[in-house]
Amino acid sequence: MKLPVDLKQAYRLLNHGPTVIVTSAAGGRRNIMAAAWSMPLDFNPPKIAVVIDKSTFSRGLIESSGEFVLNIPGRSLAQATLQVGSCSGHDTDKFTTFGLDTFAGDQVAAPLLAGCLAWLECKLVPEPHNQQVYDLFIGEVVAAWADSAAFSEGRWMLEAGSERSIHYVAGGAFFETGEAFNVEV
Amino acid sequence: MKLPVDLKQAYRLLNHGPTVIVTSAAGGRRNIMAAAWSMPLDFNPPKIAVVIDKSTFSRGLIESSGEFVLNIPGRSLAQATLQVGSCSGHDTDKFTTFGLDTFAGDQVAAPLLAGCLAWLECKLVPEPHNQQVYDLFIGEVVAAWADSAAFSEGRWMLEAGSERSIHYVAGGAFFETGEAFNVEV
Repeated sequence: MKLPVDLKQAYRLLNHGPTVIVTSAAGGRRNIMAAAWSMPLDFNPPKIAVVIDKSTFSRGLIESSGEFVLNIPGRSLAQATLQVGSCSGHDTDKFTTFGLDTFAGDQVAAPLLAGCLAWLECKLVPEPHNQQVYDLFIGEVVAAWADSAAFSEGRWMLEAGSERSIHYVAGGAFFETGEAFNVEV
Repeated sequence: MKLPVDLKQAYRLLNHGPTVIVTSAAGGRRNIMAAAWSMPLDFNPPKIAVVIDKSTFSRGLIESSGEFVLNIPGRSLAQATLQVGSCSGHDTDKFTTFGLDTFAGDQVAAPLLAGCLAWLECKLVPEPHNQQVYDLFIGEVVAAWADSAAFSEGRWMLEAGSERSIHYVAGGAFFETGEAFNVEV
């Protein structure tokens, strides 16, 4: 069940470094791409940073609309993550090509990818120098959601059978998020 | 055995989003802190981004020296990661306090933390606006190293018994890097 995540705890969706899927929409077009390079940037209000290459179709949609969504896929979407990261949306609607369902967000027009573990709806914080020189985009998280089977009450769920997030390395190789453990100072 | 990592493949040390330990040195002082918020920023020359809070002692050392190291700890250093992330180096040498050994790098004066899985020696790419407004620091990776039992020939080693990297969540809770799997488009 999709439930809202307290914005003060939204950083915890991204803190462990999962690979994300970026969705965007503008002017009647939409797109979806993978991004291994993202991180939290602030707690409250929550901000995130993500690298969006100049060659991507998503980049124009994000710059036009000032909005995007970071979708956090589980392992069942690893192939889709690689697929949407391996071709361009310039000439095709990758949602249709790969049979990916979406649903509407609350604060942004970009679609949310169905079947993910969590979603961060973001408003672009325009920083033209970073975008041009480093392909670095900053977003403020304006709404956050999680599948309650994956993340609930500020914590990732660890029950056997819970789907885990994924971490891309290179060349189609991923790690699954592994064993949880606690440490005391 | 510590071996050099080809700079073109250095991004693979950080691509899966592990928590890192940042070391720095300037003016006869040195420090060590944890950073859950880092990511690759470019392939070649490799660049990385890392968030360094204004309250940290490391920040002054990094701004003075223009250098720092991202050390990638394995699970055996999880408690040390939490410890160095839970107190300030303003008044103490945390290496001594927590019994942490170091060795010298090749390109920077900041110490490398012994027992880690990999090390990225970085030169600061000064971006005062990012540093001031977002606590966001950009570094160019000028040398990279890995324990050959953990990462070799551009790949993380997956043999049983190989130590895995770690991913911080919050409140002393970590994930270990989990099962490796491959996907084809």
